[in-house]
Amino acid sequence: MVYRLWYWPTIQGRGEFVRLALEAAGLDYEDCARTMGADAMMQDLAERAKDGRGPYAPPYLALGSLAIAQVTNILQFLGQQHDLVPSNLADRYWLNQLQLTIADVVAEVHNVHHPVAMMDYYDTQAHEAARAAEQFRDQRLPKYLDHFEAAAAHGPTEWLVDHRWTYGDTSLFQLIEGLRYMFPKRMATLEPRYPALRRLHNAVAALPGIRAYLASDRRLPFNTDGIFRRYPELDAA
Amino acid sequence: MVYRLWYWPTIQGRGEFVRLALEAAGLDYEDCARTMGADAMMQDLAERAKDGRGPYAPPYLALGSLAIAQVTNILQFLGQQHDLVPSNLADRYWLNQLQLTIADVVAEVHNVHHPVAMMDYYDTQAHEAARAAEQFRDQRLPKYLDHFEAAAAHGPTEWLVDHRWTYGDTSLFQLIEGLRYMFPKRMATLEPRYPALRRLHNAVAALPGIRAYLASDRRLPFNTDGIFRRYPELDAA
Repeated sequence: MVYRLWYWPTIQGRGEFVRLALEAAGLDYEDCARTMGADAMMQDLAERAKDGRGPYAPPYLALGSLAIAQVTNILQFLGQQHDLVPSNLADRYWLNQLQLTIADVVAEVHNVHHPVAMMDYYDTQAHEAARAAEQFRDQRLPKYLDHFEAAAAHGPTEWLVDHRWTYGDTSLFQLIEGLRYMFPKRMATLEPRYPALRRLHNAVAALPGIRAYLASDRRLPFNTDGIFRRYPELDAA
Repeated sequence: MVYRLWYWPTIQGRGEFVRLALEAAGLDYEDCARTMGADAMMQDLAERAKDGRGPYAPPYLALGSLAIAQVTNILQFLGQQHDLVPSNLADRYWLNQLQLTIADVVAEVHNVHHPVAMMDYYDTQAHEAARAAEQFRDQRLPKYLDHFEAAAAHGPTEWLVDHRWTYGDTSLFQLIEGLRYMFPKRMATLEPRYPALRRLHNAVAALPGIRAYLASDRRLPFNTDGIFRRYPELDAA
């Protein structure tokens, strides 16, 4: 059984949260648009839309005629199919809740560089982005990181739940990676406050599947087409 | 067993998606902040944050020491606990996926009136909001509604899945309610294109639990403190 992952082929973006879970779990998947191109993805999407139940947008994970879209939904699906989630029901809802809060941060991060016109270029809204970035850096970001630090510090191990990694860990890893890329100055200021998150980040990076992935050309570099974008004018200590 | 729902007491906001599901299902719940006030909610939140696993923000649903936050997570929890979701696993993931896409629209709607500074007043960003509203009305909104129309038109009944309502139906109802309040001109233009969504909206309004709820004072009116806000300058046909 090989999963077919469909996501934009030149960016990490939202698809990276799925790629990391697949890689950490050692699951077989084809990153289809990277071999077949984005046009093939748009054709696949259009085909799946015909019965009224297609994904709204990539990323989506396909297994035959079944297509699961929305990052949080995909991660929940993978977790349940491959025993990658806690057995305790309360822990599962907690994990899903945390992933949804990560998704909220990701949406806010995108909004920082596209505050007024999601479909237009950054250059057309750089002035507005500067204002959005200031409040995100100073107010929103520390509040979110405080929340995640408390979650990471909760248990007896480096993991969010029990004694093994879950998709919540790989997603927090990616969030920190992205924030370090986008806001290097601000993160240098903030990170000393978050030892549990740093420990979790290191633990994910050391997972065999993740270590191999990060060293491979399957891991795309961050760039200014993705969700986390380095525009130096949006960063400050 | 009585659920304790915690959400801001003077707005529909994100909490309304939870209220509607509870009301449609006829489940007992106390809308705690409406009787005890927002200060009591902040105290409850602070108390629950102590073990590192509290909600990031309202709404959340509490049952003793268990607290489930994030609308999509709460709805999934209620659906699974009270047999309000399809028995078929693919249908369940589809429903969760649709709810996540609804949550994306809700976040974009909030961004329309708060594009550059989520924590500041609308008046400080009305100019930027006008630009955000234009692209939302003209490009984003029809694309989302096309997607939901296809979903609503999919099955043999007025419901999204099979022959009975799910939280996806109550959430689409609320989305349409909110959009009609916020963008009356634009929705008057668009709605004739979406007969299946209109049929679904009417079917939800006619559910006994919802009919009783909408006629009660438990249903708060829309206002310009919530997520859907009527600023006439942001609307156009």
